[in-house]
Amino acid sequence: MSMWGGRFDAAPNALVAKMGESISYDRRLYKHDIRGSKAHAQMLARQKIIPESDAQAIVSGLDQIQNEIESSEFEWSEALEDVHMNIEDRLTKLIGPSGARLHAGRSRNDQVATDFRLYLRDEVDVLRAYVVDVQRALVKLAVQHTKTVLPGFTHLQHAQPIVLAHYLLAYTEMFQRDVLRLDDWRKRMNYLPLGSSALAGSTLPLDRNWVAEKLGFDGLCENSLDAVSDRDFAIELVSVCSMLMMHLSRISEDIIFWMSQEAGWVELGDDFCTGSSLMPQKKNPDMCELTRGKTARVYGNLTTLLTIMKGIPLAYNRDMQEDKEPVFDALDTVKLVLSVYAPMIQSMKVNKDRMYDAASDPALMATDLAEWLVKQGMPFRDSHHRVGKLVGYSRKIGVALDNLTLEQMQSVIPEANEECLELWKPERSVALRDLPGGTAPAQALHQLKTKWAHLLEE
Amino acid sequence: MSMWGGRFDAAPNALVAKMGESISYDRRLYKHDIRGSKAHAQMLARQKIIPESDAQAIVSGLDQIQNEIESSEFEWSEALEDVHMNIEDRLTKLIGPSGARLHAGRSRNDQVATDFRLYLRDEVDVLRAYVVDVQRALVKLAVQHTKTVLPGFTHLQHAQPIVLAHYLLAYTEMFQRDVLRLDDWRKRMNYLPLGSSALAGSTLPLDRNWVAEKLGFDGLCENSLDAVSDRDFAIELVSVCSMLMMHLSRISEDIIFWMSQEAGWVELGDDFCTGSSLMPQKKNPDMCELTRGKTARVYGNLTTLLTIMKGIPLAYNRDMQEDKEPVFDALDTVKLVLSVYAPMIQSMKVNKDRMYDAASDPALMATDLAEWLVKQGMPFRDSHHRVGKLVGYSRKIGVALDNLTLEQMQSVIPEANEECLELWKPERSVALRDLPGGTAPAQALHQLKTKWAHLLEE
Amino acid sequence: MSMWGGRFDAAPNALVAKMGESISYDRRLYKHDIRGSKAHAQMLARQKIIPESDAQAIVSGLDQIQNEIESSEFEWSEALEDVHMNIEDRLTKLIGPSGARLHAGRSRNDQVATDFRLYLRDEVDVLRAYVVDVQRALVKLAVQHTKTVLPGFTHLQHAQPIVLAHYLLAYTEMFQRDVLRLDDWRKRMNYLPLGSSALAGSTLPLDRNWVAEKLGFDGLCENSLDAVSDRDFAIELVSVCSMLMMHLSRISEDIIFWMSQEAGWVELGDDFCTGSSLMPQKKNPDMCELTRGKTARVYGNLTTLLTIMKGIPLAYNRDMQEDKEPVFDALDTVKLVLSVYAPMIQSMKVNKDRMYDAASDPALMATDLAEWLVKQGMPFRDSHHRVGKLVGYSRKIGVALDNLTLEQMQSVIPEANEECLELWKPERSVALRDLPGGTAPAQALHQLKTKWAHLLEE
Amino acid sequence: MSMWGGRFDAAPNALVAKMGESISYDRRLYKHDIRGSKAHAQMLARQKIIPESDAQAIVSGLDQIQNEIESSEFEWSEALEDVHMNIEDRLTKLIGPSGARLHAGRSRNDQVATDFRLYLRDEVDVLRAYVVDVQRALVKLAVQHTKTVLPGFTHLQHAQPIVLAHYLLAYTEMFQRDVLRLDDWRKRMNYLPLGSSALAGSTLPLDRNWVAEKLGFDGLCENSLDAVSDRDFAIELVSVCSMLMMHLSRISEDIIFWMSQEAGWVELGDDFCTGSSLMPQKKNPDMCELTRGKTARVYGNLTTLLTIMKGIPLAYNRDMQEDKEPVFDALDTVKLVLSVYAPMIQSMKVNKDRMYDAASDPALMATDLAEWLVKQGMPFRDSHHRVGKLVGYSRKIGVALDNLTLEQMQSVIPEANEECLELWKPERSVALRDLPGGTAPAQALHQLKTKWAHLLEE
Repeated sequence: MSMWGGRFDAAPNALVAKMGESISYDRRLYKHDIRGSKAHAQMLARQKIIPESDAQAIVSGLDQIQNEIESSEFEWSEALEDVHMNIEDRLTKLIGPSGARLHAGRSRNDQVATDFRLYLRDEVDVLRAYVVDVQRALVKLAVQHTKTVLPGFTHLQHAQPIVLAHYLLAYTEMFQRDVLRLDDWRKRMNYLPLGSSALAGSTLPLDRNWVAEKLGFDGLCENSLDAVSDRDFAIELVSVCSMLMMHLSRISEDIIFWMSQEAGWVELGDDFCTGSSLMPQKKNPDMCELTRGKTARVYGNLTTLLTIMKGIPLAYNRDMQEDKEPVFDALDTVKLVLSVYAPMIQSMKVNKDRMYDAASDPALMATDLAEWLVKQGMPFRDSHHRVGKLVGYSRKIGVALDNLTLEQMQSVIPEANEECLELWKPERSVALRDLPGGTAPAQALHQLKTKWAHLLEE
Repeated sequence: MSMWGGRFDAAPNALVAKMGESISYDRRLYKHDIRGSKAHAQMLARQKIIPESDAQAIVSGLDQIQNEIESSEFEWSEALEDVHMNIEDRLTKLIGPSGARLHAGRSRNDQVATDFRLYLRDEVDVLRAYVVDVQRALVKLAVQHTKTVLPGFTHLQHAQPIVLAHYLLAYTEMFQRDVLRLDDWRKRMNYLPLGSSALAGSTLPLDRNWVAEKLGFDGLCENSLDAVSDRDFAIELVSVCSMLMMHLSRISEDIIFWMSQEAGWVELGDDFCTGSSLMPQKKNPDMCELTRGKTARVYGNLTTLLTIMKGIPLAYNRDMQEDKEPVFDALDTVKLVLSVYAPMIQSMKVNKDRMYDAASDPALMATDLAEWLVKQGMPFRDSHHRVGKLVGYSRKIGVALDNLTLEQMQSVIPEANEECLELWKPERSVALRDLPGGTAPAQALHQLKTKWAHLLEE
Repeated sequence: MSMWGGRFDAAPNALVAKMGESISYDRRLYKHDIRGSKAHAQMLARQKIIPESDAQAIVSGLDQIQNEIESSEFEWSEALEDVHMNIEDRLTKLIGPSGARLHAGRSRNDQVATDFRLYLRDEVDVLRAYVVDVQRALVKLAVQHTKTVLPGFTHLQHAQPIVLAHYLLAYTEMFQRDVLRLDDWRKRMNYLPLGSSALAGSTLPLDRNWVAEKLGFDGLCENSLDAVSDRDFAIELVSVCSMLMMHLSRISEDIIFWMSQEAGWVELGDDFCTGSSLMPQKKNPDMCELTRGKTARVYGNLTTLLTIMKGIPLAYNRDMQEDKEPVFDALDTVKLVLSVYAPMIQSMKVNKDRMYDAASDPALMATDLAEWLVKQGMPFRDSHHRVGKLVGYSRKIGVALDNLTLEQMQSVIPEANEECLELWKPERSVALRDLPGGTAPAQALHQLKTKWAHLLEE
Repeated sequence: MSMWGGRFDAAPNALVAKMGESISYDRRLYKHDIRGSKAHAQMLARQKIIPESDAQAIVSGLDQIQNEIESSEFEWSEALEDVHMNIEDRLTKLIGPSGARLHAGRSRNDQVATDFRLYLRDEVDVLRAYVVDVQRALVKLAVQHTKTVLPGFTHLQHAQPIVLAHYLLAYTEMFQRDVLRLDDWRKRMNYLPLGSSALAGSTLPLDRNWVAEKLGFDGLCENSLDAVSDRDFAIELVSVCSMLMMHLSRISEDIIFWMSQEAGWVELGDDFCTGSSLMPQKKNPDMCELTRGKTARVYGNLTTLLTIMKGIPLAYNRDMQEDKEPVFDALDTVKLVLSVYAPMIQSMKVNKDRMYDAASDPALMATDLAEWLVKQGMPFRDSHHRVGKLVGYSRKIGVALDNLTLEQMQSVIPEANEECLELWKPERSVALRDLPGGTAPAQALHQLKTKWAHLLEE
C-alpha cells in the first residue's frame, strides 16, 4: 500500500478512521446521550432486565462523566469513533461490569436518533426565543414610528407612502410564521425512537412508554425501521431555518439600501458596522451583508440533507452520519445571526426627515386621487386613465401635481373639486389606508396594542 | 438595434414580451382568478363602492368567461401578459363599462397572491388524497404479508429478519408525516391577501373579512406589505413535496433492488415496467427509476424558490413572477408520481419463498442469542462478545450456527441450553420482537387493525 | 384497479405512459436525431452491414421526415414515447422494410447520447454568440464613457471614484470567462457515443471513426459503459450557465439600484421597463428583476442534474431521462435573457451629472492623500492614520476636506503641501490610478483599443 | 442592551466579533499570505516606493512568522479578525516601523483574492494527484481482470455480459474528464489580483507584472473591480469537485450492491469496512456509503457559493467572506475521500466465479443472436422480433436458450445454423464486441497498453 503512502497525510488506516469518525462533531450531543442512557438504564431495572444496583451504578457513573465533560477533564478519543462509545467506554472504566449491562436492547442506530432529537428539541427552544427577541426589537422600534412616513417600494421604485411601523410589522409577521413552523416541527418530531434497536426492535421486554415519558416525548416512534432511518425532523428543521434566514436576508437587503449614501435613511449602531479611519462615509453594514451571505450557507445545508437522504435503502445507512454537521451548522448560523440582529435593530437610528422628503413626491399619491374619483362613482379603469392624463399634463406644463390649481386639474378631470387639492401629503395618504392590514398609523397602533402587546410588556 | 437583429428569433420588443409574459403558465389560475374577482365585485357592491347592478353584470360576465375557457373558446393573448389582464380585458368587452369598475381597491399584486393561494389550496386537497391512496395501497398489501419474512438491511447488508408488513408500514408512517405537514401548511397559509392593493392597502372602505369568509379563508393577511411580498406558502409547500419525494425515492430504490436478478423478491405488474422482446430477464422498473429522477427535479424547484426570494427588498419585485413555474412543476410531478405509485404497489407480486430463503441464514439470528443470554442475566457486552466467539467457532469448524449441537455451543457458551437450539428460525426471531414498533407479526396486525384500519375499510 | 380510478385523471396505463413519455420535450432533438441516423445508415452501408440501396432509401426518407416536421405536417405520437421511435416508425411507414435495417448496431442509449451532444453543440454556438453580443453592447457603451466618473462601491457604500467604462469592462471580463468556459466545454464533450449500443458495444463491424468525422466530432467516446451513462456534459454546461447568470444577476442588481429614485443615475429604454400611467416615477426595471429571478431557475436546474446523477449505478438508468428538461430550460432561459440584455444595455441613458455629483464628496479621495504621503516616504499605516485624523478634524470644525486651507491641513499633517489641495477632484483621482487594471480613463481606453477592439469593429 | 443579555452567550460586541471574524478558518491561508506579502514588499522596494532595507526587514520578519506558525508558537487573535491582520500586526511588533510600510498600494480586498488563488492552486495540484491515484488503482485492478466476465446492467437489470476491466476503465474515463476540468480551471484562474487595491487600483507606481511572475501567475487580472469581486474560480472549482464526487458516488453505489449478500461479487479489505463480531455476514461498506453521503455535502457547498454571489452589487461585499468555508470543506472532503478510495480499490477481492455464474444466463446473449442474423442480411427490427419469439418459445417449452436443439431453433428462425448454438457463452459474447469502446478483452488490453500505460509503469 506504500504506493501512495508518500503523498498522503497518513496511512490508509488513519485516513479511514478520519473518514469514519464523528466524535469531532457529535460530542456536542453528550448531555443528551447521557440523559437518554440514564432513562434507558432505569427502565431496564424496572423491567428486571438488569439489577437495580447496576442501574444505580450506571446513573451515578454517567453523572460523573457529565461532570468530567463539563469541567473539560474528559479525554475524547477518536479511536472510539463517536460520542456513544466514548461515554460507554469511560463508564465501564469507572463502574466496571455494571457498565456492560447498559447497552441491552438498544443499538447505536436508535441511540443516536434519540440523542439527536433530544438535542434539537433543546436547541429549538433557544432558537425560538431568539426569533421572539428579534420580533420584540422590531415592535419596540415600531412603537416609536407609527407616524414616520417613508416611501414604500415595488421594483425598488417609489410606489406609495407607508409608515415605518407598518414596514417593521411586516417582518414581525414573517417571523411569526417562522415561530409557528418551529412549533409544528416540535409537535411532529417529539416521539421516541429508543427501543427500535438496530432496525427491528428487541426481543427484551423493554418499556418504551416509560422511557418516552421520562424523556419528555409525546409518544413512540411506532415503526422500528422508520425510527432508525428517519431524518425528516432534521430536514424539516433546516427547511424552516432556510425560510427564516430568507426573511433575515430581505430585511438586511433593505437596511443596506437605506444606509447607502443615496438613501441615508437609517444608521446602525457603530458596534454593528465596520468603518474606516480614512473614509468617513464608510460605515459598512457588515452584519447585514454577512446575514445575506449566511443565508446561502443554510440553503446549502438544506441541499446537503435532502440529497443525502434521496434514494437510500431502508434502514440505516452510513450516509446518514453526514446528517449532523449540516444541521449543527445551520442552527449555529441562525442563532448567531439572530443574536446579533435583535440588538442591531435596537441600535438603528432613523432619519425621519430624509424619509419624509423622499415620500413627499406628489406622484406617490396619484393612486389616492384615482380612488377618490372611484368614491365619486367613476369606474376605476376610467379614473386610473384620467389621473394618468393629469400626470402627463402636469409634466408637460412643468407644474408639480401638488401645485396645480383647481382649474388646471378640472381641465383634465372635470369631476375634481377642492378636496382634491388636499390629497398630496404623504401623512394624509397613509392615514386614509385605514383598513385591516393597511398602512394607516391607526392600524399599526391597533396591532401594537393588541396582537403584539405581549412583546412590549417585557 | 439592428445590430443583433439578424441572429435573434425576434425583435427586442418581442423578446421583452416573451420574457415578461406569464400567460403561458399562469392561465391555469383562471378558475381561482374568477372566483376571487366575483367575491371582490360582490363586496364592492355591498360596500356601495360600485352599484349592485354592475356587480351582477361582472359576476355573470365572469361566469360566461369561465364557460368560454372550459370549452376552449377563449382566446388567450400573450400581449395581455397574464391571466388577470386576459380575463379583465374580455370582461370589459363582454359587459362594457361595468367591467371597468372591477379593479377598484385592488392591484395585480394582491390579486395574484390571492389566486395562487386559492389554487394551491385546491391542489393540495388532491395531493393529500393521492398520498392517502399510496398509504392505502401499502396497507392493503401489508395485510397480506404480516407473516412474510425477509431480511432487514442496514448498510445494504443482511441484518435481522423482518416481516414485509413491517417494512410497508414504515413507509405508511413516513407518508403520514407528509400528510401532517400538508395539514399544517394549509392551516398556516389560509389567509386572504386581497385588500392589500399594490403594497399599502386601499383608501376605499373594503370589507376584507367578508371576502375572506366568502372565499373560505380562515382570516386576513394582517400586513399589506407582507401580504403582497410573501411567498413562504410556496416555499413551504415545495419543501413538503421534497420530503415526500425523498420518501418515494427510497421505496423506489428498495423495489429496484428487490427486482434485480440478484434478489428476485418482487415483480411489478407489466403495466409499470418496460420489457424487451429480446431479453426476457429485462423487466425494467422504469416507474421507480423515474420516481428517483423526479425527486431531483422537485429538489431543484425548491432551490429555485428559496434562491428567488433571498435578499430581495420589500415589497413586490418582478423576480417573484418566477415563483409559479417551480411550484406548478413540483405539484404536477408529485401528483403524477403518486398517481402511478398507488396502483403500482397494488400490482406488486411477492416471491415469499426467495424472501424467506434469504432471511434464513442463521447468522441473522445471532442477536437473538445475545439477548437470550441477557435474559439469563448476562451483561449485554459480555453476551455480545460470547456470541461473537460462537460465530467464529462455527465458521472455523464449518458447521452452521443452526447445526451446532448443544455440546458444541456450550463449549463456547456454558450458559446455553436446549432453548438456544430453537433460536435460528427467522419466523421465531420476528415473533419475539413483540414490543411497540417491533417487527413481530402481532405488532403489524395490531397496527393494521387500529391505526390504519380506516384505510382498509374503503 | 378501480379503487382510485375515480379520482385520477386517467387509468393507470395512461398515467404510466404520461410518466414515461419524453416526446413532449425531446422532439426538439429531431434535426440531430435525423442527422445522426443518416450518418449511421451510410456507415452501415459502407461496412456492408446493410445494402447501399437501403441506406439511400433511409437517407431520403429521413430528409422527407425532416421536411414534414419543419412544415408541421408530422404527427407526433405520445404512444411512440420519444423522438427516436416517432421518427423510426414514420420512416418504416414511408420506405417500408428498408427502414427496419436502420437500428442495427445501435440502441436508444447511444442514440440519445449522440443526439443530445449534437443538439447542445449547436445550441452553445448560438449561446456563445449571444454572450459576445452582450460584451459588444457593454464595450460600445464603455467607449462613450471613459471619462464618466461615478462612485465605486464596496458594501454598497461609496468607496472611491471610478469611471463608467471601467465598470462596464469589469462585466466584459466576467463574460469573457464564460466564453472560455463554453469553449473548454465544447472541447471536452465533442466525442461520439454512437457505436456503444446498449452498454457494451456491438458485435457488428461498425466504423465509429467514420461516423465521428461525418458528424463533426473530434473523436470517440472510448468506453461504451461510460458513453451511455455519462451526463457530465449536461451538468458542466448548466454549471457554466449558472455562473453566466450569476454575472447577469449582479449587473442587474446594480442597474436596479442605479435606476432607483435615490440614485437616479441611469434610465433604461422604455421598451425594457414597465411603467404606470398613474405613477410617473414608476419605471420598473422588470427585465433586470426577471434576470435576477431567472438566475435562481438555472441554479435549480443545476441542482436537479447533479442530484439525478448522484449514486446511480452503471450503466443507463431511466432516471437519466430527467436530464433533458433542466438543460433545455437552462439554455432557453439564458438565451432569452441574453437576447434581451444586449439591446437593453444599448438603450441605457446615463445621467453623467448625477453620477459626478455623487462621486464628488471629497471623502472618496481620502485614500489618494494617504498614498500621496506614501510617495513622500511615509509608511502607509502612518499615512493612513494621519489622514484619518485629518478627516476627524475636518468634521469637527465643519469644513469639508476640499475646503481646508493648507495651514489647517498642516496642523494635522505637517508634510502636506500645496499639491495636497488639488487632490479632491474625482477626475484627478481616477486619472491617477493609471496602472494595469486600474480605473484611469487611459487604461479603459487602452483596453478598448486593444483587448476589445474586435467588438467595436462590427 | 441588557434586555436579551441574559439569554445570549455573550454581549452584543462579542457576538458581532464572532460573526465577523474569519481567523478561525482563514488562518490556513497563512503560507500564501506570507508568500504574497514578500513579493509585494520586494516589488515596492524595486519601484522605490519603500526603501530596500525595509523590504529586507519585512521579508525576514515574514519568514520568522512562518516559522512561528509552523512550530505552533504563533498566537492567533480573534480580535485581529483575519489572517492578514494577525500577520501584519505580528510583523510590526517584530520589525517595528518598517512593517507599517508593507500595506502600501494594496487592500485586504486584493490581498485575500491573491491568497485564495495561491492556496487553491496548490491544493488543486494535490487533489489532481489524488485523482490520478484512484485512476492508477483502477487500472492496476483492470489489468488483472481483462477476462473476468460479469453482467452489465441497465436499469439494475442484467443486460449483456461485460468484462470487469471494461467496467473499471469506464471510471478511469470519468476521472480523466475530472482531471481535464481541473487543468482548464487552473489555466483560467491563474491571474494576479494584487494591485487592484480596494476596488479601483492604486495611485502608486506598482509593478504588477513583476509580482505576477514572482508568484507564478500567468498574467494579471485586468480589471480592478472584477479582480476584487470575482469568485468564479471558487465556484468553478467546487463545481468540478461536485462532478468528481458524483462519479465517486456512482462507483460506490455499485460496490455496495456488489458486496450485498444478493450479489456477493466483491469483498473490500477489512480496513475499509466495519464488521460485527455478532453478525458475521456484516461487513459494511462504510467508506462507500460515506462517499455517497459526502457527495451531498459538496453539492451543498456549491449551492452555497452560487447563492452567495447571486445578485450582489459590485465590487466587494462582506457576503463574500462566506466564500471560504464551503471551498475548504469541499476540498477537504474530496481529498479525504480520494485518499481512502485509491487503497480501497486496491484492497478489493473479486469473486470471479459468482460474477461468471451471474453472467451465464443465456438470455443475456439474445442480442448476439439478433446481430448474427443481421450479419446474414436480416433487417435488424426483424431479427429483433424473431429472437423475441424464440425467447418466448424457449420459455414455453421450458428449455433454456442454450439447450435448444438446432431443429427447435429453426422452427422459429429458419435462418439459424450450427453457429447459433455457440452464441451463448458470455466469454464469446464479450470477445465479439471488439470495436473501439466495446467490451472485448482485446479492447481493454489495448487501452491498458496505450492510453493508460503510464499509470501502470509506476
